Amino acid sequence: MSERVVVVGADAAGMSAASQAKRMRGDDLEVVALERGAYSSYSACGIPYWIGGDVGELDELIARTPAQHRANGIDLRMRSEAMELDLDRREVEVRDHDGDRTYRVGFDQLVIATGARPRRPEIPGVDARGVFGVQTLDDGERVLDALQEHAPRRAVVVGGGYIGIEMAEAMVNRGLTVTVATRSAEPMATLDADMGRIVHTAMEGMGIDVRTSVELNEIETDDAGRVRAVATSEGTFEADLVVLGTGAGPETSLAAAAGLTLGRWGGLVTDLQMRVFDTDGVWAAGDCVESIDLVSGNRVHVALGTHANKQGRVLGTNLGGGYATFPGVVGTAVSKVCALEIARTGLKEADCDVVGYQWLTVTVDSTTRAGYFPGAEAITVKLVVEKRTGRLLGGQIVGKEGAAKRIDTLAVALWNRMTVEEISGLDLGYAPPFSPVWDPVLIAARKAADAVRAG
Amino acid sequence: MSERVVVVGADAAGMSAASQAKRMRGDDLEVVALERGAYSSYSACGIPYWIGGDVGELDELIARTPAQHRANGIDLRMRSEAMELDLDRREVEVRDHDGDRTYRVGFDQLVIATGARPRRPEIPGVDARGVFGVQTLDDGERVLDALQEHAPRRAVVVGGGYIGIEMAEAMVNRGLTVTVATRSAEPMATLDADMGRIVHTAMEGMGIDVRTSVELNEIETDDAGRVRAVATSEGTFEADLVVLGTGAGPETSLAAAAGLTLGRWGGLVTDLQMRVFDTDGVWAAGDCVESIDLVSGNRVHVALGTHANKQGRVLGTNLGGGYATFPGVVGTAVSKVCALEIARTGLKEADCDVVGYQWLTVTVDSTTRAGYFPGAEAITVKLVVEKRTGRLLGGQIVGKEGAAKRIDTLAVALWNRMTVEEISGLDLGYAPPFSPVWDPVLIAARKAADAVRAG
Repeated sequence: MSERVVVVGADAAGMSAASQAKRMRGDDLEVVALERGAYSSYSACGIPYWIGGDVGELDELIARTPAQHRANGIDLRMRSEAMELDLDRREVEVRDHDGDRTYRVGFDQLVIATGARPRRPEIPGVDARGVFGVQTLDDGERVLDALQEHAPRRAVVVGGGYIGIEMAEAMVNRGLTVTVATRSAEPMATLDADMGRIVHTAMEGMGIDVRTSVELNEIETDDAGRVRAVATSEGTFEADLVVLGTGAGPETSLAAAAGLTLGRWGGLVTDLQMRVFDTDGVWAAGDCVESIDLVSGNRVHVALGTHANKQGRVLGTNLGGGYATFPGVVGTAVSKVCALEIARTGLKEADCDVVGYQWLTVTVDSTTRAGYFPGAEAITVKLVVEKRTGRLLGGQIVGKEGAAKRIDTLAVALWNRMTVEEISGLDLGYAPPFSPVWDPVLIAARKAADAVRAG
Repeated sequence: MSERVVVVGADAAGMSAASQAKRMRGDDLEVVALERGAYSSYSACGIPYWIGGDVGELDELIARTPAQHRANGIDLRMRSEAMELDLDRREVEVRDHDGDRTYRVGFDQLVIATGARPRRPEIPGVDARGVFGVQTLDDGERVLDALQEHAPRRAVVVGGGYIGIEMAEAMVNRGLTVTVATRSAEPMATLDADMGRIVHTAMEGMGIDVRTSVELNEIETDDAGRVRAVATSEGTFEADLVVLGTGAGPETSLAAAAGLTLGRWGGLVTDLQMRVFDTDGVWAAGDCVESIDLVSGNRVHVALGTHANKQGRVLGTNLGGGYATFPGVVGTAVSKVCALEIARTGLKEADCDVVGYQWLTVTVDSTTRAGYFPGAEAITVKLVVEKRTGRLLGGQIVGKEGAAKRIDTLAVALWNRMTVEEISGLDLGYAPPFSPVWDPVLIAARKAADAVRAG
């Protein structure tokens, strides 16, 4: 007797889960996947690069088309929006937008992969023409259409986080004059302010106007209802186009309405196998769940494609009758704005204060290759370390080509609860084209170990 | 009452030790450093790039000049060769090559940092004009002089290891037609042959003639005593210039003559603080010592500048009255030949057989960036894994830009004795310009975990 699973949301997490479970159970598992949009399994992280022109075609961002999923035996229903999760009757109510009808589909197992919902500033004019989010492929198409139709000259990017800086780069690449307006004291508030300051300075050097500690007042429009300017606590910035990069929270409205318990950040909370706690036969993965932060021990919400893929696969393995766990995250993230690479992992100073770690920091400047080797670029590494124990708590890296992925060394060290003394002994790859004889990460660890000893 | 330390060898290990100890003890420690050559503290690893033209001037390879060391209070004596270590009388006999005299200098503490000695093939003609090693700056100058004076057209590089491939690149960059002749089945014998095969094919694609399983017979010379060809078991290769890249062993002849016990590979064997076992007040660091391989538990000889610097610093810290240890190595190395990056860590298949690990391997092909991102390059990752436990034993990476330094992730995982199942869950940096959504290392770990489960 086969089971039916209904998957709500057909992007990274949902379709990784569906594919893995179907691969393992074949005809024994009927998989119905519901997607309210027009695309499945796409790289949302690639959207800024598509808008900026690095990626030529929308198709390149699609990892697997609906037809490919269907060829694998998955009943993927596009433009089909889950309207209600009825956990008592084990049914989902579905709105078929194309067929203009509503129906119910029963399930034995339910997978919630509803993703994230962008946070939109609640200010007058935020829905004006010329104001765009960049979460979905539809959003991306709208921005590209606007670039073509209206030939905007001035863009204001609201938000200085990953999306903000990536969209600033995209707009620069499209030839616009760009202002980034962020609420925080420096761009990239996932870094400490001293590291964010380096990003700030570099962005100014790229000709990007960066405005910090900005509160939005209003998006001003012209007579046609198109954006004209962004009025803020720090002045009014003229704009022909506004991009909202103000973050995203878990999209869990259906789950909440169904009575599922949400965590501190509004996300679903699951066990290690991605089963929603306290509910039989309900699973969740991706941007709609909270994950365990392995450094602080707390639940966190991190919307990132790599976690969504891993969680989906873990979910699918368990749903498929196997065994896998998603142990958690350490908060690793990499990004870039033009030639400047930015990376972080673990806790920053303020995070340590919140969870009760006493900390010290060291920051070192070095080069990505041997100083004498062509293409050696500046790199700054900051470590956040527990006092007395010397345990690594977090790391931040800003630099040029070859800088960002060095964060992986720190991420693996964090995962293994290494001290900076231990890290300073690590056997990392060295040759002049790849590193100074002391890798910048090792220099930072060595100096941090000195600082711990000094107290 | 101050102590005197005599340091034999003034390159990376010796001068790191000397500098650190002097920094910590000041006038309390008299430091005499003896160097038989004309340069101190230089980057031997940079020599192929200087010969190839990536590095313009010899000076750039010198981290610290004799004058700088002397300004730090170190009595550095150049062209002063230690001829004998007299451990009973606590004296070193020194030959002053410039002063043409021999004298003895007493010590309380002795630091042996005599480095490595290149292995030269014992064949007729190996000392002919036009045959060069590439270990010292003098060697490098001789090659550069020969390039200028004799305008050679055909180079034969003997040896397919790091020096061999780096010198092949250097000769290509100088416009020569290059043959690499190696004894092993594939170039880069520190990789398994299947990965070496990828390097082989790529080198052929660069126009380098690669000859494998070659035994040298003779270096043939012309009437003037200059090299004319290299005669081998696989044919005779014409050559105007021959580079010997046939590896190096520990230079421990003085230590052996002094009665110090050497290890299996002929290197000095020290405790974790870099004190030579069974001898009071004698220390050693750098290419002349054997290190603990943390994966196999055995002593190994790895001549690498990064280890020499770390060991020297550890030695100097302990000599200076502090405390530090050099815990060992995991066998990480990175290199490149033109645009192809090559990296390895841990044990390869044959190493596992020697030490008694039962193993399995997986090899995956992926890309260095998201497949759709400009500049995404091919990368191949191979993992060697213990059967049943799934513990990572080694990793090998071959690919283009952005490939090699990914080895650090595996090196840190090895250091922490992680299983491939654990590695597959690691939180590594992801963004389209830096990685596919599953980093190649994670894909390999995931597939390896599957293989372990399958038995």
